[in-house]
Amino acid sequence: MRTRFAENIDSLAGDLAAMCRLTVTAMREASGALLQADLGLAEHVIDVSGELDAAASRWEQRAFSLLALQAPVAHDLRFMVGGLHISADLHRMGGLAVHIAKIVRRRHPEHVVPDEVLEVFTRMGAVAVAQAEETEQVLQHRDPERARGLLTADDTMDDLHRGLFAITQAEDWPHGVKAAVDITLLGRFYERFCDHTVEIGRRVIFLETGVLPDQG
Amino acid sequence: MRTRFAENIDSLAGDLAAMCRLTVTAMREASGALLQADLGLAEHVIDVSGELDAAASRWEQRAFSLLALQAPVAHDLRFMVGGLHISADLHRMGGLAVHIAKIVRRRHPEHVVPDEVLEVFTRMGAVAVAQAEETEQVLQHRDPERARGLLTADDTMDDLHRGLFAITQAEDWPHGVKAAVDITLLGRFYERFCDHTVEIGRRVIFLETGVLPDQG
Repeated sequence: MRTRFAENIDSLAGDLAAMCRLTVTAMREASGALLQADLGLAEHVIDVSGELDAAASRWEQRAFSLLALQAPVAHDLRFMVGGLHISADLHRMGGLAVHIAKIVRRRHPEHVVPDEVLEVFTRMGAVAVAQAEETEQVLQHRDPERARGLLTADDTMDDLHRGLFAITQAEDWPHGVKAAVDITLLGRFYERFCDHTVEIGRRVIFLETGVLPDQG
Repeated sequence: MRTRFAENIDSLAGDLAAMCRLTVTAMREASGALLQADLGLAEHVIDVSGELDAAASRWEQRAFSLLALQAPVAHDLRFMVGGLHISADLHRMGGLAVHIAKIVRRRHPEHVVPDEVLEVFTRMGAVAVAQAEETEQVLQHRDPERARGLLTADDTMDDLHRGLFAITQAEDWPHGVKAAVDITLLGRFYERFCDHTVEIGRRVIFLETGVLPDQG
């Protein structure tokens, strides 16, 4: 029979996975808005971002109550402490999707992404969404082996980010400073989004095994 | 007479202030390296960044032990939970100073900062260092009124950041794409550095009063 506390942990883990689903949707919509210069989609990402803010705040309040009332130790305490960090990471991931959406809104009806980098951003969006989906599964199942996969999958995003940097810095970049600046910020937002999934992977490994893997 | 647990809290608060001093030094040196294209100073920021990594990791381990052994409640629990977030913020602030130093190193012996934006970056460096110094005091004294000052002081950095953006986006920007991209990233690093001091201010208010102020 599951104890009451174990049920609470399961429920809190489910809430982290649900928050992660919000970041999947936010990133999918922000990337769609970016690739198609879709103002409505961009505004939707911005409009619903309060849901993730509220979920992160609720999570922390529940964790706080459980820490105060139940005084967990060992694995359960690692889960609570790790979960506080994970909740903050998920919150920030949602914020980064909003940053992407805001650039789309600021430049509308212009397209932010010129043809030269359309493929890179298509792939960045796909990688970010896939990485967030995998993070959701890792949070749902709290499987340290699967979490380890999050740590290496991030290399693809780093390669894409470096490639993007090289394109805008090339002598023959034809789109001027404004486009290059937008693209630089967008690249940074995608990269940071994935960095947070790596952090979550490290935290899940820690909370299940007690050992925090080295930073990339 | 102070209890043993209160002594532990004081010691942990002192450690957060000490970590904050490391971020003050890192930001002062990174800004000096940037303004003077000083490679040695940039490399020093990068070389010593492991100290902050280690301090953040030690802090979390101590907090974890205290949570497990002492099961604190109310104010003391808020301090531990808030401190976990603050430690992560300080760690990230050090990482942002390292990012600035790495841009200086990548471009050396070129100056990253052209004359047009030298004054803005001089002010951004000064604001970031001052804000980190004030954060150290807030952590040392855990004074919620003083913490509230951190929340508004950040407006100066936001103004500088907007001004920087306007300069590189102007039609007559003479330094090309590469310089504009570097400046965009640097501006973002300074802004994020100060965002974390605001987060720390909010956390200190919460841990002393039990009420978390709204996000700016």
